[in-house]
Order: sequence, then structure tokens, then C-alpha cells
Amino acid sequence: MRLTILGSSSALPTSERYPSAHVLNVHERLYLIDCGEGTQMQLRRNKIRFGKINHIFISHIHGDHVFGLYGLLSTFSLMGRTLPLHLYAPENYREILLSHLADFDIHLNYEIDFTALGGKDPLKILDDKHLTVTSFPLKHRVPSFGFLFREKPPDRNIIKESIEKYKIPVSRIPAIKKGADFISSDGEVIRNDDITIPGPDPRSYAYCSDTRYFKRLASFVKGVNLMYHEATFDDSLGQLAKTTGHSTSSDAARSAKEAGAETLIIGHFSARHKDISLLVEEARKIFPRTLPAIDGTTFDVGNIHVP
Amino acid sequence: MRLTILGSSSALPTSERYPSAHVLNVHERLYLIDCGEGTQMQLRRNKIRFGKINHIFISHIHGDHVFGLYGLLSTFSLMGRTLPLHLYAPENYREILLSHLADFDIHLNYEIDFTALGGKDPLKILDDKHLTVTSFPLKHRVPSFGFLFREKPPDRNIIKESIEKYKIPVSRIPAIKKGADFISSDGEVIRNDDITIPGPDPRSYAYCSDTRYFKRLASFVKGVNLMYHEATFDDSLGQLAKTTGHSTSSDAARSAKEAGAETLIIGHFSARHKDISLLVEEARKIFPRTLPAIDGTTFDVGNIHVP
Repeated sequence: MRLTILGSSSALPTSERYPSAHVLNVHERLYLIDCGEGTQMQLRRNKIRFGKINHIFISHIHGDHVFGLYGLLSTFSLMGRTLPLHLYAPENYREILLSHLADFDIHLNYEIDFTALGGKDPLKILDDKHLTVTSFPLKHRVPSFGFLFREKPPDRNIIKESIEKYKIPVSRIPAIKKGADFISSDGEVIRNDDITIPGPDPRSYAYCSDTRYFKRLASFVKGVNLMYHEATFDDSLGQLAKTTGHSTSSDAARSAKEAGAETLIIGHFSARHKDISLLVEEARKIFPRTLPAIDGTTFDVGNIHVP
Repeated sequence: MRLTILGSSSALPTSERYPSAHVLNVHERLYLIDCGEGTQMQLRRNKIRFGKINHIFISHIHGDHVFGLYGLLSTFSLMGRTLPLHLYAPENYREILLSHLADFDIHLNYEIDFTALGGKDPLKILDDKHLTVTSFPLKHRVPSFGFLFREKPPDRNIIKESIEKYKIPVSRIPAIKKGADFISSDGEVIRNDDITIPGPDPRSYAYCSDTRYFKRLASFVKGVNLMYHEATFDDSLGQLAKTTGHSTSSDAARSAKEAGAETLIIGHFSARHKDISLLVEEARKIFPRTLPAIDGTTFDVGNIHVP
């Protein structure tokens, strides 16, 4: 599970920072989270294959999280995409998107399978081979949602010596890795626990987009490996954070601490913070394992070194 | 008069080429022509001051010429702009733009003064201190317009010696530079021609956006100093150019030759042309003073060296 930051600015992009977009790679399937202006160029720059993106998650309907979508959808079509695209966004966006594509006379070669986000509680919105994704409500000026990506427990690892010892045929191995017991040719039942060990721990990533601090957030992402949380402002701008529905670096750190996250990435920095080292320092006072989002950086979820 | 290329790709941007956007600097006033996705980042990268842009020209309503506008308009507002912005675009775009801004709950601090493009003949759409701008129809799949920027004749230069000879007071000099005769204190009329020489030649730039070749185009931009003309495809793809309403490199060169342009810039390259030197070669066979558009390049109109 690897996370690549494509954009880490808030509403005003800078020459270094593009608006919000993250790509999560889970077993070589790509999940795009938010799609600020320039996302398709950032995908190219980071040599990320467009064809592997089948799911796009939009946290809320503010331009710095969405304005790259029209170009990307159009590019998919021009590149010959026919596979349906799964789009998860606040309910009112379906109509906005369709009407804007029609205004531009954009006819996609593929279908958009739209899932409306909503509700006051976490909601499972995706359940595929490797992953479940849950949306959860945030607190912003408009309806805004976070996303929790949880890897499914991987297969168990078979103990090599047991294959020889019990003469386990190759054809039985996939079932045993999934947890089945083994019945030998003379009818003896060998318990799964005796011939396998657990696979690696499943990993998880939470994307907490535009939000002000609120206590319940931590309960939505309890024990997550990697938590991204916006930190638009440094602590001196706490009042501005409140009125604009955003978080300070300490707000983000507090949520990560309460959630018992392993590592925190802060981002969505206001353009006024040319140097974001102060924000990282402030967050680390509360949550030491904090790192800043930097465009073009990739994090190996569950295996991140914090200096 | 200086032209900066912000984007030179066609619908599919690459890691090197952003979608269409040009900035024309005329006496330090900036005129933005088309506004593909990422234009605001390209403006920052090229250190172009947002506050000096008061006029934006949109050639036609295809995403690769427009999708950067929403972010840019929003950024203007966040940066505190209050001056009206003059927007020139095909008529149907006014409604599309306003409704999309409303969908995104974007409230601009400034007014948009919208001028609708239309008609089958050239139309003067702007006349300010230094410049006139004329729109003219192109031939594309949707209504598409080119723009001709013509500098007004600059002031005449006064012949230094005549100031002393005729005892011309400083207060009279501005009028004389504009062409007035001088009447000396003893009533003698000194003809303007005898005390001034013409200023530098006024310069002109024509932006010929998405279009297929058509004969009448040349008449719209006769004798222009610098002509930008799209050349989406190389000559081998002439049939594709026809069906998509685009031009080949030779089409662009033919128009430049027929127009008697001084220099031609080709751009809007299809992503399939990784190396565009073939397109430049093809164009130069017909119009030797051809240069390729490259993102981030600035041309001094009327003073361009072609190797």
C-alpha cells in the first residue's frame, strides 16, 4: 500500500504545490482521492498509469478538490478508456458534473458509476478483493467527507516444512492460505494453525480532507496506520481556521493522537506558509510521528521512517 | 509587445506541454488568451503577475482551452481582486460559466464584464490606450474565434535639435509627439513633419486557435508581425486533421504565407508527436520563418530571430 501526494496546497496553488490530489496504490490498483486542477499533469509527471485508476473519491465540492476532474475524465476518454469509472462524491455533484460535461459537448466512451456520499455515520462505499473503503462525515463549510482505506487481511503464509511433512499437494495450497484445514490421504485432519502463520498485518490509510477539529473524527479512523489530515494554518491562525472551517497543525496532531494513528501526514497548506517547517514542529509537539505532504512524494504505508 | 507561451499541447497534455494558454504583454498590460487546465500554475512558474491581467480571451468552448478558468477566477478573488475582469468568449459560455461558479458556491469579489464573440466577419472587441483587438471566425467543430492584437501607432519622436532651434517649451512636447504642429511665439507655424520623425512601427499578433485550413483566414490577419496558428498534426495525418477540424503543419504554414505574416509559431501539438521537429520542418518548406511553441518561452514580437 503506497500513497503518492500529487497536490498539497489549499485553494491557492503555488509554483511548488498543486491543489489536493492523492493516489493510493493497493496491490497495483490505483485509487485517486480528490482531483484538484492539474491532477492529470501531476499523474504524468509521476509516471502513474491512467489505465490503472478505476475509482475516484471526491471529498467535497470545492474547486481546489475538483477542478482537475473534467480534464482527467476527458483524457480517459481520449485515451480509449471503455471500463466503467467509479466515482464517489457528495450527492449534488452528479448533476453538476453531468451538466458541465454536456455544456462542453464531452461524450465519454465509458460509463461513470456514481456513488453518492452522505449520512452522519461511516458508510462502507467499496468492498473489493483487497480493500474496503468507508466514507465518514467531516465538518466544513459544505458537506465534506473523509475516506478510510482498509486492506483486507492478506492470505496466511504456509510453513514450508509442513508441505513435505504432510505431503500437501499444490492444488490444496490456495485454500490452506485462506485458512482451510488439510485432510491427509489417510483421513487425518491437520489444523490450519499448525501448518500456516499469519500473513503481514493489513494496512490502512485515512484521508481527512477539509475539516475543522471535532472530537468524533478520531473514532472514525481508530488505529489507522497512516492518517492524512489537513493543516491549512499554523497555530497562530486558529481563529481563521475556525471561521473558514479548517484545521491548524495542532488540530491535525490532536486528531491523530486521539485516533491512535501510527503516522500523520499534514497538508493542504495555505499559500501564506511559504515554509511549512513551523507547522510540522507544532504538530510534532503533540504527535511526534508527523510528516509534511510534499508534491511528488510516495509513502510506503505501514513502513514509514520519521526522522 | 511580448508573447509568452504557457501551454502548447492539444487536448491531451503531456509532462512537457500544458493545454493552450498564451499571455501577451503590451506595454506591461497583460492579455491572457485561452486558459487551459493548469494556467494559473504556469503563470506562477513564469513569474507573471496575476494583478496585471484584466482581459481574458477564450477562443472556443473546448475543455483544453477553458478548464483552467474556474481556478484562475477563484484565485483572483482569493488574492483580493476588485477590478472588473473583461472576458471575451463565445456567447453560450456566459451562462455555462455563471452556473458553474454558482454550483461551486464561488462568489467573486469583482465583476466579470462579458463580451460575446460571434459573427461571420472580424469584429473589434477591444480598443484601449495602446491596442485594438479584433476577433474573427475560424472553422472548427464548434464556434471558434481567432484574435488579432494590433498595437496603436506609438507617438512620434521629436527631433532633439528642433527643440532648441524653435525654442519649443516642454509643455508643448506631448501634443507635438501626437502630431500637432508648433506655433512659435512670433506666430510662425512649424510643421510637425519638420520637427518629428515617426516612432517605431506598431506591432501585431494574431492567435489562430483550433481551426481547419480555410482561404479567408489570411485576409483577417494580413501583414501581421507574429502569427500563431495551431498545427495539431503532421502532414501524414491530413485526413484526421480534416475530420477533427484541425490543421497540419503545412496548413498552418500556408495560411501564414497567404497572410504575409513576418513570423509563424505553430503549436497545439497532438500528444502523439513526441518530437515536433518534423512538424517544424514541414512548415518551413512553405514558410521558412516558422518556430515551434514551447511552454515557458517568450517571444519579442517584431524582433524574433529564426535560426
